[in-house]
Amino acid sequence: MSQGFSTISVAPEAQRIIAQVGRYLTAKNMTVSCAESCTGGGLAFALTSVDGSSAWFNQSFVTYSNQAKSSLLGVSEQTLQEYGAVSAQCVAEMARGTAAKSGADCVISISGIAGPNGGSAEKPVGTVWFGFVLDKRVYTVHQQFSGDRAAVRDRAAAFALSYLNDWLVETFGEDL
Amino acid sequence: MSQGFSTISVAPEAQRIIAQVGRYLTAKNMTVSCAESCTGGGLAFALTSVDGSSAWFNQSFVTYSNQAKSSLLGVSEQTLQEYGAVSAQCVAEMARGTAAKSGADCVISISGIAGPNGGSAEKPVGTVWFGFVLDKRVYTVHQQFSGDRAAVRDRAAAFALSYLNDWLVETFGEDL
Repeated sequence: MSQGFSTISVAPEAQRIIAQVGRYLTAKNMTVSCAESCTGGGLAFALTSVDGSSAWFNQSFVTYSNQAKSSLLGVSEQTLQEYGAVSAQCVAEMARGTAAKSGADCVISISGIAGPNGGSAEKPVGTVWFGFVLDKRVYTVHQQFSGDRAAVRDRAAAFALSYLNDWLVETFGEDL
Repeated sequence: MSQGFSTISVAPEAQRIIAQVGRYLTAKNMTVSCAESCTGGGLAFALTSVDGSSAWFNQSFVTYSNQAKSSLLGVSEQTLQEYGAVSAQCVAEMARGTAAKSGADCVISISGIAGPNGGSAEKPVGTVWFGFVLDKRVYTVHQQFSGDRAAVRDRAAAFALSYLNDWLVETFGEDL
């Protein structure tokens, strides 16, 4: 039945963090949803790698094109033209749009330049912006990652997971 | 900048097939979009692993819950109640809904039981249904995969990729 080749995998160390995230979300009856551009669905794929994720994960968006960011998540044309898709403004709108569409308690949005093309002096390859909606507050974070396309996408997913996990631990305590 | 752990990766052999899929889609000016349940975004993540995928990939949906399948893709309550989310009927509606929402020329939908829980005598763990919209025709395919949760998800993504690649080769010839 297998096609004889491997496609996609989630590293065991990431699964341990996701399992912890899942324990928090389950205990607090919360859900998470994502809007992914450069990671292309990889964060959602990672989150759903652990058994029982259906308790706290309902849906996610992969909005790769600007058009998709606008039509699915309501990112404004003005934001895309003025600041670009890889910007604090864009990931904030992606996160807000995802929260509104999904009703999720925790939202993560990611937009960046994974490379090898698409970089500029102002926004080199590895530039990634993250948006979070946590407890109804919106946060945006910028990171500059090194490495090739696969590494940038991997590190972006790791950063997003860590940020969510850290927020859960800080908010609800370590004794879960 | 790295969080010091790996998260997600796409196998090189899958990337070779995706690169070929990308060459076909680019040459024919076509796009692909996915609606993923059990693979959780992994197929979209794989497709966007190759440079230049933005030419033929705009958006994708991760509809994990039944509610998401209905609200985002228009899967009918009747289908979910009568046949369940893991059924030919459901993946056909997911694929049609994705085609309508995205305008993509090629659509892949996936719904299955990755396990370890959720299986039944009728639909054991490893049961996966695939829907495809290709050249405006809808196809549904059933597969029974062996292995654990990660293996089932991996094999489901591999099957979907192979199916799309085979269709492109058969439709447009091998001389691309």
